[in-house]
Amino acid sequence: MKILVINCGSSSLKYQLIDMDGEKVLCKGLCERIGMESSMITHEANGHKATTPAIFPTHTEAFAEVVKKMTTGEGKCIDDVSEISAIGHRVVHGGEKFKASCLITDEVINTIRELSPLAPLHNPAGILGIEAARKVFGNVPMVAVFDTAFHSTMPPKAYMYAIPYEYYEKYGVRRYGFHGTSHKYVAHKAAEYLEEPIERLKLITCHLGNGSSIAAVDQGKVVDTSMGMTPLAGLMMGTRCGDLDPSVVNYLKYTLNITGHELDEILNKKSGLLGISGVSSDKRDVEEAALHGNKRAQLASDMLNYQIKKIVGSYIAAMGGVDAIVFTGGIGEHDEIARAKVCHHMDWLGIRIDTDKNEHPVGDVCEITAWGAKVRTLVIATDEELMIARDTKEVLEK
Amino acid sequence: MKILVINCGSSSLKYQLIDMDGEKVLCKGLCERIGMESSMITHEANGHKATTPAIFPTHTEAFAEVVKKMTTGEGKCIDDVSEISAIGHRVVHGGEKFKASCLITDEVINTIRELSPLAPLHNPAGILGIEAARKVFGNVPMVAVFDTAFHSTMPPKAYMYAIPYEYYEKYGVRRYGFHGTSHKYVAHKAAEYLEEPIERLKLITCHLGNGSSIAAVDQGKVVDTSMGMTPLAGLMMGTRCGDLDPSVVNYLKYTLNITGHELDEILNKKSGLLGISGVSSDKRDVEEAALHGNKRAQLASDMLNYQIKKIVGSYIAAMGGVDAIVFTGGIGEHDEIARAKVCHHMDWLGIRIDTDKNEHPVGDVCEITAWGAKVRTLVIATDEELMIARDTKEVLEK
Repeated sequence: MKILVINCGSSSLKYQLIDMDGEKVLCKGLCERIGMESSMITHEANGHKATTPAIFPTHTEAFAEVVKKMTTGEGKCIDDVSEISAIGHRVVHGGEKFKASCLITDEVINTIRELSPLAPLHNPAGILGIEAARKVFGNVPMVAVFDTAFHSTMPPKAYMYAIPYEYYEKYGVRRYGFHGTSHKYVAHKAAEYLEEPIERLKLITCHLGNGSSIAAVDQGKVVDTSMGMTPLAGLMMGTRCGDLDPSVVNYLKYTLNITGHELDEILNKKSGLLGISGVSSDKRDVEEAALHGNKRAQLASDMLNYQIKKIVGSYIAAMGGVDAIVFTGGIGEHDEIARAKVCHHMDWLGIRIDTDKNEHPVGDVCEITAWGAKVRTLVIATDEELMIARDTKEVLEK
Repeated sequence: MKILVINCGSSSLKYQLIDMDGEKVLCKGLCERIGMESSMITHEANGHKATTPAIFPTHTEAFAEVVKKMTTGEGKCIDDVSEISAIGHRVVHGGEKFKASCLITDEVINTIRELSPLAPLHNPAGILGIEAARKVFGNVPMVAVFDTAFHSTMPPKAYMYAIPYEYYEKYGVRRYGFHGTSHKYVAHKAAEYLEEPIERLKLITCHLGNGSSIAAVDQGKVVDTSMGMTPLAGLMMGTRCGDLDPSVVNYLKYTLNITGHELDEILNKKSGLLGISGVSSDKRDVEEAALHGNKRAQLASDMLNYQIKKIVGSYIAAMGGVDAIVFTGGIGEHDEIARAKVCHHMDWLGIRIDTDKNEHPVGDVCEITAWGAKVRTLVIATDEELMIARDTKEVLEK
């Protein structure tokens, strides 16, 4: 069974074709600048990777090009598009309507559209991708996999904001959480590695990348997560501010004399590591600058590490303990300084990592626990595409 | 040495006269509805308490009446106003300018005034009180004791928000923390009870009342606290929302089509326990309603207890351990359900309380630790007025 995994942005289309027999990636790629000038496609298959210019007025033309790349030339990996059994679409916001992945119908599309106020940038792009895929792939079954779904098990005490209750009822204002596909993937991978049923584990999964979130996964179910109604909340990120005193929002708006929209831009695009360091939104650049004595870069790094540490502590309290901490995502997998700082001086909570193992983690799942530590610490390479493909397969086989 | 402690609101004046020999309260009272019709004063001394109507066009007349009550009639506790050696004023926001209590000069008043944008309701009221007191008490030395000062030891990684750095430099946007006087009082009281120098202790002080905040006090210095630039942040409170996804602020503003000021009112006055429960801002009423099956009241209680628990966990991680947890404030001192829920299932972190002791705490400092628990848990009656008086004395004797 071959499954095509799709992740659409408003002007981009990321894809991966996975053969579920052996979970092998047959090809992957990215269409960029859709609807703009100088569009292009990068396609990778058979050890070949090439970027070529293309004309993509809409996502439909991009999909047609993806099909062409998969079925012809050096990047060919299937003979015919009919070999694709299903398509799995990443959808950012499932609100309270979607607690699991589901087969896409007209009704499902409408509901995703209705949820757009909660994710004004992301859900419309997801719909664009689904509708374009329908035009190009016809009746191939499609499944929507939601970033929010894995978090739908949170109890109200964790997801409610302490604002008038009617705003929850009328406008859906609550914590939803994101990166659910990644948290789910690494939680299950951790259970597999630890050789314990996930139902017997308390896990804290730290997805740290350009966007970052942490989840508390108790017995396989998320009980809390750091992102909120939107992906702006929680930890500071590459360019996002994370949690703030709510008064700061209005204070800045009035002090800077700007519109709400302009402030949103600042909090989403000019804050986080970039805003503090003034150097970059990329943690690697920030660490590099800090190493060369840049104090604001050092502060940005310290703030992020400290915030992660605090959330880990809060989730240990929330779950009444923890069996394993999982680091994943660009920073989680590759930034040994972040892992070292987060786990430093955490013996009280049972966490201690091995310096050597932390500096040189090997493989898709690498344990970096220090000898004798009560809590296991793991570095796991996330694979959201594979998780989407697995969910898609599962929905089809139901 | 007799010290008069003053806490001014925009239309109120709370006072307490303390004889520092023995730290005995000679009288206390409250002037209400200053500048409005039907003003009144409640004065308590010599086991006598009476509320009488008065005419208070400004704080000056209120101070004059306080002097009259202290020196004449049933509530008399001093022969002459000259017995008052000093006046200690509570000031809410000391910004970064005031890291400790200080003698009030014209320059200090100007600086407090300059900090008003950070505390638009509180600092102007504090200045009103100081200026009126100067008129009535003449040259008596006066000391300003700041709600923020005890938190001034926080490191930048704890107080910085991940927004563009210049907003900190230009507009002072950072975490300051409040209730510092209470946190300081109970932290020192805990050290005294534990018979350890505070420099050897890691403490988490939970000031839980109509306003609530938690502080991590490591070696006598605050390293983190839950309130932020303003007292709106952190835990949910009686009517305040506490932390929110920053996107929620603009989302609500646009969805409800209201002004920033109106939204501020909602987040400050109609949220928290009141907003969720729909019953009351008073935790006692909320628990009562929950007991009778009101689900939203139960949710409000669960949310608050859960949020306290998470912050306690995060501060244990921040400090790398904890020696004692202190509960204080109206809820902290009197709500055994909150203490029980916060400490429930916290064995992993070394916290376990004795059910009986928790249900019937006795005295100003009551230990409720369960036998064998690694972390001590204390219930301590706070006394902000006494702390202000002590600070005032200390400043004068310097």
